[in-house]
Amino acid sequence: MRIPSGGRPVEEVDEFDLIDSIQRSIMLHKSTRLSLGIGDDAAVWTPRPGRQIVLTTDTLIEEVDFRVPWIEYRDLGHKALAVNLSDIAAMGATPRLVLVSLGLRGNERDREVIEFYQGMNGLARQFRTVIAGGDISDSPHGMVISITAIGEGPPKGLPLLTRSAAQVGDVIAVTGALGLAAGGLRTYLYDLRNLDGRPVMREHFDRPTPRVREARVLLRSGVRAAIDLSDGLYGDLPKICAASNLSALVDATKIPVPSSIRWVFTDWFDLAVRGGEDYELLFTASPAVFRRACQAFRRLGMPEPIAIGTMQEPGADGPEHKLRKQNGQVEVVEPGGFVHFGPKR
Amino acid sequence: MRIPSGGRPVEEVDEFDLIDSIQRSIMLHKSTRLSLGIGDDAAVWTPRPGRQIVLTTDTLIEEVDFRVPWIEYRDLGHKALAVNLSDIAAMGATPRLVLVSLGLRGNERDREVIEFYQGMNGLARQFRTVIAGGDISDSPHGMVISITAIGEGPPKGLPLLTRSAAQVGDVIAVTGALGLAAGGLRTYLYDLRNLDGRPVMREHFDRPTPRVREARVLLRSGVRAAIDLSDGLYGDLPKICAASNLSALVDATKIPVPSSIRWVFTDWFDLAVRGGEDYELLFTASPAVFRRACQAFRRLGMPEPIAIGTMQEPGADGPEHKLRKQNGQVEVVEPGGFVHFGPKR
Repeated sequence: MRIPSGGRPVEEVDEFDLIDSIQRSIMLHKSTRLSLGIGDDAAVWTPRPGRQIVLTTDTLIEEVDFRVPWIEYRDLGHKALAVNLSDIAAMGATPRLVLVSLGLRGNERDREVIEFYQGMNGLARQFRTVIAGGDISDSPHGMVISITAIGEGPPKGLPLLTRSAAQVGDVIAVTGALGLAAGGLRTYLYDLRNLDGRPVMREHFDRPTPRVREARVLLRSGVRAAIDLSDGLYGDLPKICAASNLSALVDATKIPVPSSIRWVFTDWFDLAVRGGEDYELLFTASPAVFRRACQAFRRLGMPEPIAIGTMQEPGADGPEHKLRKQNGQVEVVEPGGFVHFGPKR
Repeated sequence: MRIPSGGRPVEEVDEFDLIDSIQRSIMLHKSTRLSLGIGDDAAVWTPRPGRQIVLTTDTLIEEVDFRVPWIEYRDLGHKALAVNLSDIAAMGATPRLVLVSLGLRGNERDREVIEFYQGMNGLARQFRTVIAGGDISDSPHGMVISITAIGEGPPKGLPLLTRSAAQVGDVIAVTGALGLAAGGLRTYLYDLRNLDGRPVMREHFDRPTPRVREARVLLRSGVRAAIDLSDGLYGDLPKICAASNLSALVDATKIPVPSSIRWVFTDWFDLAVRGGEDYELLFTASPAVFRRACQAFRRLGMPEPIAIGTMQEPGADGPEHKLRKQNGQVEVVEPGGFVHFGPKR
């Protein structure tokens, strides 16, 4: 049970006082290229001349994407920003600034709102990103967090990481283990205690790390196709297949699933491939580029990416996502990770 | 009463089919500087080298900022975009692209969602702005529309319009009449029919025009201080006063209130100064610059801005917002337009 923190409900706090407190709590960190931040009609920023600008937005809605009794406001701020920075990373770009649009119930404590911004700012600083503006509005039916992240890529003409750049014969790889975040969600859903792996699972679920650094190493090593794993392998790999018009063959035995997940959950394989929210990068690269990327990761002391399959010519009916099972049999996978609307799969 | 439109509830529609339909309905309009739009992890855009980039975000929440039985989806799309383009205009910048994050109840018809995007796209095209990306999520308690608009300003070093640039002796002026949008809201609130001015009031409330062109003429004429009137004159003028650390004296008789509002509402003055949502520009300029701006508007066949007061040295207790009433008496105005939280004023 979370102990209610101090402070006053924001509905009793003057809106401008609240914005002032937020501003003070995150003003420590400034960017020289940001000439106007919070406090005018809009933020003003001058990117490096000729750079490609990468823009993404993602909204988290209470009771759909998060539950306040489960997550601390500080972690919520971290996570809301992380999922957006992850999209910037998946393009191979460097996050520079974010705008935060926050809808509040009104019964949040002012201290909690400040903690939310502090959690966000902690992650922002880690990636030298600035909270440049946003707005706060009234959202009586539940918190709404909408973040837009803006990043800088290489100059125009130079490649970024896209979903459509996979080639036949490419290695399919991921930057880290899958299933920990889904395991973390399980510990909340079923109130699982006394689990050795619980802190790690919850850390992955509550405070995912956007793979910004990894993405840049991949791009520099010659990788061109990537996506971040927000909807799970089975949700996101089909997007690379569709955008590149290729099939994918994944080797079930090579999917990296931590033993903490295998030991605890009988459906650990499903958690790993459909659970989502891992925010690792899924990428494809020629075997030579993949080797070069692995070397670069080793040199930098970063955990090496893990090969899990191969890109192939599309089938007669178009791109297919296939799985080679432990017994050697190959089956076509029904796509599907987390889906917002439509018949649940 | 709005007649329910055809189509299927979006909760029965495949998310990717819906996104495809949206994409098709707005793909007609492209920008050469947008190298990657909807369909990857993020949009990629290359601004003109050295330009200042202006960024703003605003969220509209159902039952707080709009009511679906009152507004057509097409108009809702228009309005949601207009309030964001208005913030870009208030900086003197030119809108270039927008990201749209949409939370849906699930019982909206697919046709209605398409209409929403079409309404948005109609306004976007008018200002050569591109819908470059976004996301759709599940928001069971009501629609949430979060838009981020990105504009280009002049090269770094050249001025924009800010709240803090007002000077003692500046004329305070607005680009158009006040109170029509608040009148439009009244016609919905009290179901007023058979009112001559109703169509115009509703047009201003449902489909405000962001003053993008006006802002650029003001900036070119030498104006430096501006804000857009979203919270009403009494809500927004104090922001210029605070940011510029000056007082403002407004002449009540000079505030432009259309006769359609004066005739119908006994509290027409309050509607004009506190009603909000007019999205006219409020700006200040030296008398010489103001004359130059008026000439420029005349030359371009645009309705001239209207002077309503003067910027003055701050009072002993700091910036004050004062009103000279019809009888010549000057009183200090309690600030306040629309406020999200805090004691209602």
